[in-house]
Amino acid sequence: MRVVIDWSATRLEAALVDGADAVVDRIGTDDGLKHAAGRHEAVLDAVLAPWRQAHGALHILAAGMVGGRSGWMEMGYVAAPAGLADIARAVRHVALANGDRLTLIPGLCDPAATPFPDVMRGEEAQLVGHGLDRDAVVVMPGNNGKWARIGGGRIVGFRTFITGELVLLLLKHSGLAGIATQPEGRDWRAFARGLECAAGTDRHGLLTRLFTARTGWLAGQVAPAEIGDYLRGLLIGWEFIEARNAGWWQPGGTVDIVGDDDRVEDYRRAAERLGLIARVAADDTALRGALAIGAESSILA
Amino acid sequence: MRVVIDWSATRLEAALVDGADAVVDRIGTDDGLKHAAGRHEAVLDAVLAPWRQAHGALHILAAGMVGGRSGWMEMGYVAAPAGLADIARAVRHVALANGDRLTLIPGLCDPAATPFPDVMRGEEAQLVGHGLDRDAVVVMPGNNGKWARIGGGRIVGFRTFITGELVLLLLKHSGLAGIATQPEGRDWRAFARGLECAAGTDRHGLLTRLFTARTGWLAGQVAPAEIGDYLRGLLIGWEFIEARNAGWWQPGGTVDIVGDDDRVEDYRRAAERLGLIARVAADDTALRGALAIGAESSILA
Repeated sequence: MRVVIDWSATRLEAALVDGADAVVDRIGTDDGLKHAAGRHEAVLDAVLAPWRQAHGALHILAAGMVGGRSGWMEMGYVAAPAGLADIARAVRHVALANGDRLTLIPGLCDPAATPFPDVMRGEEAQLVGHGLDRDAVVVMPGNNGKWARIGGGRIVGFRTFITGELVLLLLKHSGLAGIATQPEGRDWRAFARGLECAAGTDRHGLLTRLFTARTGWLAGQVAPAEIGDYLRGLLIGWEFIEARNAGWWQPGGTVDIVGDDDRVEDYRRAAERLGLIARVAADDTALRGALAIGAESSILA
Repeated sequence: MRVVIDWSATRLEAALVDGADAVVDRIGTDDGLKHAAGRHEAVLDAVLAPWRQAHGALHILAAGMVGGRSGWMEMGYVAAPAGLADIARAVRHVALANGDRLTLIPGLCDPAATPFPDVMRGEEAQLVGHGLDRDAVVVMPGNNGKWARIGGGRIVGFRTFITGELVLLLLKHSGLAGIATQPEGRDWRAFARGLECAAGTDRHGLLTRLFTARTGWLAGQVAPAEIGDYLRGLLIGWEFIEARNAGWWQPGGTVDIVGDDDRVEDYRRAAERLGLIARVAADDTALRGALAIGAESSILA
């Protein structure tokens, strides 16, 4: 049986996949990469023990941070443009002491970025799972979110936007942290007002517009419970503006949104407000991509 | 005798000024506004006691956060365009129990900013101290730094850039916090490389360029000890780019840099790299401005 794992700094999520590519079980633990440092193999051995006892030796597929510099085994980056075979050729197969086989999926880099190559880890599996058979512009929300172009069956290129990380930093650690309160549920009106600020014709840029969360509060126009979603709307809207300026989209175009958390809805709303047609992808693209890369690497082997 | 105080969240700095406008003594304590909450008058009474005993009742001038929402007494904002008399008319005189007189200086707002009026507290005193008698574009480095235009003897308008706050957030709390190390002294080469990244012709904006601190490290091109000054150069350079796009300056123009910490040198280097003539102002503008506003308010009274 195959197992696809998503091992982040704080969580280990695993899915058991049968011969028909169906997920038949899931395990999630707090054994994040930080917690497991120095004993990754032992942690994985223990967490997956029930499946190993039931099904025998496992074939574990892993993309993302587990192959990063602060992960388990550092994997290189395949240079874009890259297709499925390019990625599959660069995987690393590791025979584990318990009889399991681990397949680590490499990251992707874009050497066209300046002044340094841009990088992704894990999103390449999402893109493969989303499908490389149709030309598309894909946005992948995240702390270090990506815009990627798919064409001719390959990932042509991509760029990172640190939008999600800035939202967290501003809400948790900036001068707004002592003002903003957490509402119950999302405040879509505040989010829309943030989008309007990003889309507006003010000639000033992000460093000035971000101050409007505070001036709006000082003016009594943005309540403490509205600050979070106002900032999300402003920063995500601004990501779209920067992406437009860089040639990723034009009004009337289409963008595919690939992700698995509630930021997908944020990006859908931003895209529609700015005149883009938004196609929301399935939420299991990372798993589908890891399976596809694993299968291709077996064919190539 | 007059006393000019600078009361921030974490510090209380006071300067004793004689009849010839010369500073004859200074006191600094850790009695910040947060620490003094609810007992501001008692704290001020105690800290200034030596001067009161030596010189009798004091006339205390205060601009900035002491008049903010989380300060001692909330002061309003005078709307730009505003000159010395406009600011002086809006001060508040408070007779303290110990016989001292406190003069609180209002903030300034710019109602032309969208979607909410921009605000400053303290920088209006710096601008007055720098001088309103000469038309100029003034940049004031800070966590919430300002660009201001002086013309016709008035502060015509201004905008805030949260550059300084973002530098701190990224270095202290982002994914870079665990990578960056603190060098001895400044690394002007790394700062210049950050400036180059901001000034470069990449079509992508700030949300993408900020990721280059990480990709530069991953590529072995930005060392951990270089990350801080690389980020400072990038963000300050980008502030200048945004300010240019918004019409604050053109290549070959002149900008006055007003501040009292080592960020003044950062801004001078950024200005010169980008083709601006930088004039560095005296570092006691806040004190000179508070004295001038206090004197004008006495004339008007």
